[in-house]
Amino acid sequence: MNKEAFRKISYGLYLVSSVKDGKFNGQIANSMFQVTSEPSTIAVSINKENLTHAYILASRVFSVSILSEEAPMNFIGLFGFKSGRDVDKFKDVKYRIGKTGAPIVLDHAVAYLEVKLIKEMECGSHTIFVGEVVDYDNIRNDPPMTYSYYHTVRKGKSPKTAPTYQQEEPQAAAAAPTTAASYVCSVCGYVYNPAVGDPEHGVPAGTPFEDLPDDNDLEGDP
Amino acid sequence: MNKEAFRKISYGLYLVSSVKDGKFNGQIANSMFQVTSEPSTIAVSINKENLTHAYILASRVFSVSILSEEAPMNFIGLFGFKSGRDVDKFKDVKYRIGKTGAPIVLDHAVAYLEVKLIKEMECGSHTIFVGEVVDYDNIRNDPPMTYSYYHTVRKGKSPKTAPTYQQEEPQAAAAAPTTAASYVCSVCGYVYNPAVGDPEHGVPAGTPFEDLPDDNDLEGDP
Repeated sequence: MNKEAFRKISYGLYLVSSVKDGKFNGQIANSMFQVTSEPSTIAVSINKENLTHAYILASRVFSVSILSEEAPMNFIGLFGFKSGRDVDKFKDVKYRIGKTGAPIVLDHAVAYLEVKLIKEMECGSHTIFVGEVVDYDNIRNDPPMTYSYYHTVRKGKSPKTAPTYQQEEPQAAAAAPTTAASYVCSVCGYVYNPAVGDPEHGVPAGTPFEDLPDDNDLEGDP
Repeated sequence: MNKEAFRKISYGLYLVSSVKDGKFNGQIANSMFQVTSEPSTIAVSINKENLTHAYILASRVFSVSILSEEAPMNFIGLFGFKSGRDVDKFKDVKYRIGKTGAPIVLDHAVAYLEVKLIKEMECGSHTIFVGEVVDYDNIRNDPPMTYSYYHTVRKGKSPKTAPTYQQEEPQAAAAAPTTAASYVCSVCGYVYNPAVGDPEHGVPAGTPFEDLPDDNDLEGDP
């Protein structure tokens, strides 16, 4: 029973966005597949705790931006680690409003699918949403990001002491030379370093991981 | 509206196997993801026409073998193109019977997950099966096959005139030098050449694609 088995499932990296009462939110997800081709439907698995989950249930529409291999860490970290309850994730991001009213993030996306929810299935901590694709298009021809690329190639550029991806929830990293411990989003790999904080999003240096808003929109490894 | 958008979704290549009345069957699938981590559950999307679908509904157990990058074409073709109604797919394949009674194919697999069905959701031509993973393990350390690898690298070794992957159902290929037309499994890329037939499985040379059993276990692109 080697847990490594689960890491051999192949995934992409996607940005699932929705709308509620005129507000936009989005999050990183990896669990998405096409279900049928006639009509074109897709399924995504979203954590019930996440704000995006509430938005999808409310508006019954969402979009999926398929992220590019070159999507930068801070962009993925914004959508994968921050909560839309605390920050407006769409403030500095290029997007347009789709046919359904859902926002479609265009930055660092190679393609998008826009979806009307057909049905949902509760599965413990997550809900699988199945929707009909009502619009879609190519955006650019960069290769799409895969989970494997993100964790092997991107980590390849990090210092050896950087925490390696773990399937489990955020945890203390292997001791890094300049920090006591860092925390890693188990989906996107975003690293939170308490010694540094996250000044860009109003988190002062020295803020312990435990004191971060616990309602953040982190999509834990499903 | 460029259909290329759908091809940017990342997938692996999996062999989903089940059991019914002591008989085994399995098929190639690409639509699989983990849903929750506590407990560990996964979802797969299976075409209702497929024999494996009936087996899963009957026994409510299945296994998923995560295929290796080196899985050969004839192996993938056997599970992706043939029907268990016509051939015993397990005859010459290395497998073992798992805890649930489902067969677990070990040939060309890097890892497996064995599953008890929890619930299912009908989605038009397909059903999404969600199951709890009751056993799993690593098998070998080869890289797992991805859809992208299969269609780019594997095709890279084929002649330029070989049919390229199409999302649509089996269709006439671009004219190949030695054949009138070939047909391609939209999931696994298995090429059926009517001029050659499939002597290995009792299909004589000259058998038109249209005359192949139409109840085959081909998992059409979902």
